Amino acid sequence: MKLHGYFRSSASYRVRIALNLKGLSAEHLSHHLRKGEQRAPEYLAINPQGLVPTLQGDGDIVLTQSLAIIEWLDETHLQPPLLPKDPLRRAQVRAFAQAIACDLHPVQNLKVLAHLRELGLSEEQVTGWAAWANREGLSACEKLIAGEAGPFCFGDAPTIADLCLVPQLANARRFGVDVAAFPRLLKAEAATKQLKAFADAAPERQPDAE
Amino acid sequence: MKLHGYFRSSASYRVRIALNLKGLSAEHLSHHLRKGEQRAPEYLAINPQGLVPTLQGDGDIVLTQSLAIIEWLDETHLQPPLLPKDPLRRAQVRAFAQAIACDLHPVQNLKVLAHLRELGLSEEQVTGWAAWANREGLSACEKLIAGEAGPFCFGDAPTIADLCLVPQLANARRFGVDVAAFPRLLKAEAATKQLKAFADAAPERQPDAE
Repeated sequence: MKLHGYFRSSASYRVRIALNLKGLSAEHLSHHLRKGEQRAPEYLAINPQGLVPTLQGDGDIVLTQSLAIIEWLDETHLQPPLLPKDPLRRAQVRAFAQAIACDLHPVQNLKVLAHLRELGLSEEQVTGWAAWANREGLSACEKLIAGEAGPFCFGDAPTIADLCLVPQLANARRFGVDVAAFPRLLKAEAATKQLKAFADAAPERQPDAE
Repeated sequence: MKLHGYFRSSASYRVRIALNLKGLSAEHLSHHLRKGEQRAPEYLAINPQGLVPTLQGDGDIVLTQSLAIIEWLDETHLQPPLLPKDPLRRAQVRAFAQAIACDLHPVQNLKVLAHLRELGLSEEQVTGWAAWANREGLSACEKLIAGEAGPFCFGDAPTIADLCLVPQLANARRFGVDVAAFPRLLKAEAATKQLKAFADAAPERQPDAE
């Protein structure tokens, strides 16, 4: 398999963790987002959104969107499962993942921040915007799992919720958010730090890290 | 079941279509988003994000995030299926749905547009922002299904892709986007118009419509 990504892309980071947890290896192809390499015609041909990640499998398998890729990996490589079996628990895990992937992350991604600059906002306002999105989003996530014993977001093994949380916490810190306000999220993050699959997927461990 | 929503919320609209397709009825509870009713303490107690929709089922079942709710409905009420059986096709359908739910929609929702106004952008700039997000997002969606015969987004029956597309096209029109540029998306929308489940879920058909 080939994973088209970028070391600092949180969506790519989620998929890297999933591949590692499943014990799968993939050739990592880097597309430098700040240089706009994700909009090169040959990349747009496989990912018309011009976003990372894209996972290319055997034959003509081309998968886009991090959560769709992760659910595909989970459906085709069963161990260890990244979602619980019970439909209600699955829905809770997915809702947490989507609170990050559908509400928080898209509002503070590179493309949106670039567009804010084009509209004339100052660098301080743009960083403030990203911090606002992270603070609001993580604050809701903290409440979503307040009643969960853990230590992971949901139970004693990582799920797609943790795969979304860890990269997002890294983003939040980068934008100056005080993550100490989210003790339950930090507890889940601490649990993931014990796992090589998470450590190996970290941005600073990638060959394209700057 | 009780569906907490708002007539014009696209995420609520997706769930209304899913309920109708599954032949399920729910009591609709409206939360007026422009009046901030979604941030009332009693609503935040069931949905800490302060977003709609929330689906309350029997007992203490509380589900948030439209795509998680729809997948739960699909896993607990099998007919008609809203996702194909084949893992690769499922991933393609989910990726299309997420291109809307994780990339397009969140960037132009009420909360984000309100924050743009707070930062001093003019009404024209705010509408321009929403139109930009819709044009970029739908343009990518058009390419994602360019090779699909249809008539729905994927095949001859509606999937979660169509459930996300129809509300988003309504948004795009509201922001003045010329949707004629997306013939394949319009073909899918036309197919959904033949189905009562879609027609009955339309914003203008809801009791709280203004």
